[in-house]
Amino acid sequence: MKVEYIEPFLTSLVNVLSVMAKTTCTAQKPFLKKDVTSYGDVTGLIGLAGEHVKGSLAISFPEKVILQIASRMLGEHFTVIDPTIVDMTSEIVNMVVGSAKSKLSENGHRFDMAIPSTVTGRNHTITHRTQGPVIVVPFESEVGEFFIEVCFES
Amino acid sequence: MKVEYIEPFLTSLVNVLSVMAKTTCTAQKPFLKKDVTSYGDVTGLIGLAGEHVKGSLAISFPEKVILQIASRMLGEHFTVIDPTIVDMTSEIVNMVVGSAKSKLSENGHRFDMAIPSTVTGRNHTITHRTQGPVIVVPFESEVGEFFIEVCFES
Repeated sequence: MKVEYIEPFLTSLVNVLSVMAKTTCTAQKPFLKKDVTSYGDVTGLIGLAGEHVKGSLAISFPEKVILQIASRMLGEHFTVIDPTIVDMTSEIVNMVVGSAKSKLSENGHRFDMAIPSTVTGRNHTITHRTQGPVIVVPFESEVGEFFIEVCFES
Repeated sequence: MKVEYIEPFLTSLVNVLSVMAKTTCTAQKPFLKKDVTSYGDVTGLIGLAGEHVKGSLAISFPEKVILQIASRMLGEHFTVIDPTIVDMTSEIVNMVVGSAKSKLSENGHRFDMAIPSTVTGRNHTITHRTQGPVIVVPFESEVGEFFIEVCFES
């Protein structure tokens, strides 16, 4: 998996959170996922599929982080994970991938997006079944840390 | 969403569990998913995407059911959800969708498969973000009940 596959998702996530939630976030050093350790309490997940490529993308937030992002994005105070937050998490993933899809398509990497899903539950684990690497990129922001995971197979 | 979209997944699940795990299962009455209630402790999830269609499919098993399926499929005794069972769950989903994809393609419904993921965790919830219905089909088998959920958008 090449860096050029990953970069548009990171840029897109920075832009979406900046525009929609007025939240500045910065990508930290990427690493390879070696186990199934849960990185969040709420995870937005979407499948990517094309004739020559398939993939999966997940963005995982700790509860306190997604509650603050929701408050900034939706303009009301949230204290628990409710259906509004679940829906917002899927929407964030959808926007991030939609924007990255356009950029990757310009570079000849074409894929379609599946229906996004949101997983909630403390200590949930998510394991992508791929022969290739799963890249994890931690993000720091003023509301706390969260993670994006991407895997692609050609 | 038409019945002709769903039926191949159900047939395929019956065949996969029969051949791979020597387990007979029978589809019960389908219903529309109205909330995010968790239907299992281990869920295999895969995105489906094509030019004219997108979807998501999940198969959720209670712990005791997937442990017994694993024992039948892999020929050893399992007492906890471990990486082997996580991998097997993704593989079941992959086989079910791979087989259904061929049948649907013959009827002109073409899509590609994303990388499958497996979610574990007690009381996890999964919410598909779709404008259309999410169809849940419970299955009964000699090792217990489990569920398949499918959603498609044109």
